[in-house]
Amino acid sequence: MSGEPTMDEGLRTPRSLKPGDRVAVVAPSGPVEPDTLERGVAVLTGMGLEVSLGAHVMRREGYLAGFDAERAADLAGAWCDPSVAAVVCARGGYGASRLLGLLDWDAMAAAEPKILLGSSDITALHQAFALRLGVASCFGPMPGNDVLGGAGGPEPRSLASLRAALTAGPEPVTGDRVLVPGRARAPLTGGNLSLLAALCGTPYAPRFAGRIAFLEDVGEQPYRIDRMLTQLLQAGAFDGVAGVALGSWVDCGDPMPVLADRLVPLGVPVLAGLPVGHGSPQQSVWLGGLGVIDTESCSLTGLLGDREKTM
Amino acid sequence: MSGEPTMDEGLRTPRSLKPGDRVAVVAPSGPVEPDTLERGVAVLTGMGLEVSLGAHVMRREGYLAGFDAERAADLAGAWCDPSVAAVVCARGGYGASRLLGLLDWDAMAAAEPKILLGSSDITALHQAFALRLGVASCFGPMPGNDVLGGAGGPEPRSLASLRAALTAGPEPVTGDRVLVPGRARAPLTGGNLSLLAALCGTPYAPRFAGRIAFLEDVGEQPYRIDRMLTQLLQAGAFDGVAGVALGSWVDCGDPMPVLADRLVPLGVPVLAGLPVGHGSPQQSVWLGGLGVIDTESCSLTGLLGDREKTM
Repeated sequence: MSGEPTMDEGLRTPRSLKPGDRVAVVAPSGPVEPDTLERGVAVLTGMGLEVSLGAHVMRREGYLAGFDAERAADLAGAWCDPSVAAVVCARGGYGASRLLGLLDWDAMAAAEPKILLGSSDITALHQAFALRLGVASCFGPMPGNDVLGGAGGPEPRSLASLRAALTAGPEPVTGDRVLVPGRARAPLTGGNLSLLAALCGTPYAPRFAGRIAFLEDVGEQPYRIDRMLTQLLQAGAFDGVAGVALGSWVDCGDPMPVLADRLVPLGVPVLAGLPVGHGSPQQSVWLGGLGVIDTESCSLTGLLGDREKTM
Repeated sequence: MSGEPTMDEGLRTPRSLKPGDRVAVVAPSGPVEPDTLERGVAVLTGMGLEVSLGAHVMRREGYLAGFDAERAADLAGAWCDPSVAAVVCARGGYGASRLLGLLDWDAMAAAEPKILLGSSDITALHQAFALRLGVASCFGPMPGNDVLGGAGGPEPRSLASLRAALTAGPEPVTGDRVLVPGRARAPLTGGNLSLLAALCGTPYAPRFAGRIAFLEDVGEQPYRIDRMLTQLLQAGAFDGVAGVALGSWVDCGDPMPVLADRLVPLGVPVLAGLPVGHGSPQQSVWLGGLGVIDTESCSLTGLLGDREKTM
């Protein structure tokens, strides 16, 4: 691997978590269900982490977890706090993209890089943090959702995958379908398709050139998936893409025909069925970290530098 | 009004329809229900028009009215046929945006400007036709939908409004709510919010500068309306907007809080409740034609040059 990059160009890797590290839970998107979050926080505590909650994490303003200024203050405050080793988003929903114009990116860029953990609506933050802060970030389950905070306890595979991603490097993830065979080795980017499409035309627009595009979604009918992929295609987001890794498509009907219709013509390896995104289990990947998709083993292997196992 | 423009800068007005004119019905988007279309075509015939159907108008490929090449061929063929005075879209659904990269814009720009009629998903065509062909176009009901093609006959107000728009000039449309008072006089643009958001970042991206933005939608929850407006705002589409005219929001819950939250800060007149878009009645407006929103009379008045009443 000598000479090959192990990170997205220019992106910084935050340090791994170790026992005793402090993590801050914030709610940049939708309102949080208290019991679920309490159980999810207990899971983080059980990993040996010290957990602090953002001042407004239990706020609720309609479909938002409080006013924009409150959510932005919690997020920026946690990021800029040198005692915090990871910013953990409580859940998705909607609302992170509303914050992008309200964050003091210069102040946040001056802070030491740290882990951002979240998925779904948090895609907007992953995308903006990569562009504005130059940091790789972890796309994985959140404590305010059932996968970690469910009444029956955390889903074991999801928890093991998250622990690995936060403390050493991501475990390989296995898919179940090959749309275009081949092998691609490039930094991983992307996230929730709806959010990526909703960033087109904005200063945070996705560009997959030289990267593996990871895509997943929930609750979107095939014609909507078509519209979103068509937008990304027409916006040039896929120009120069190295490969495509498809995660879960929960409550999306049968998305495979439209995914094949829009993505196979790209002529790059396309691997589907990765248990990443929504649903259970929900494994973790690093956006901005090097990924290898290999359709022979039907796997996505993520690398994130050479890290010592810390937990 | 001397010296004031009556049209969007550079846009050409197609000539009005008169009895005996030939109109071509095409299906650029979703598949058509035959009985509805038959009744809708009879309504057009009853207006004294000669109606021809695109070769593939009854095709069905999943959620599309045939393959892209078929839908594009019908649309471009009708537009370039000098014997056709208006291209009437059968219905919306989804699929028009897939055609934007497949149309021979140079050949279509060489054709005499004519009327394009449609709404909902046809917003993608209105937007692209204005940008690539420089023509104003009519946002109104379609023969493959119930408003014109319902079993109980066409909805009378919608039909009268459509007839006026196609033969003389659009009738004034009255709203029922003022979000920001004032008066704005500028060319009208816009259409279905989902489609406008889905064009962000593409070569057909909306720009509302110096124009009144007309917006409507169907079946979108408030958080989705928020996401789409936030995208358009972050993409700069609203920069320099002269006013906002809001149409119908069918099956969108209560969209007024989010519409106010995102649009009132623009500081331009915002008029809501116009019966344009989805639902019934469904009145017609000209995109690219001059519009006047006046919150004292709660009306949108459209002008389209000085036209003789032809039917």
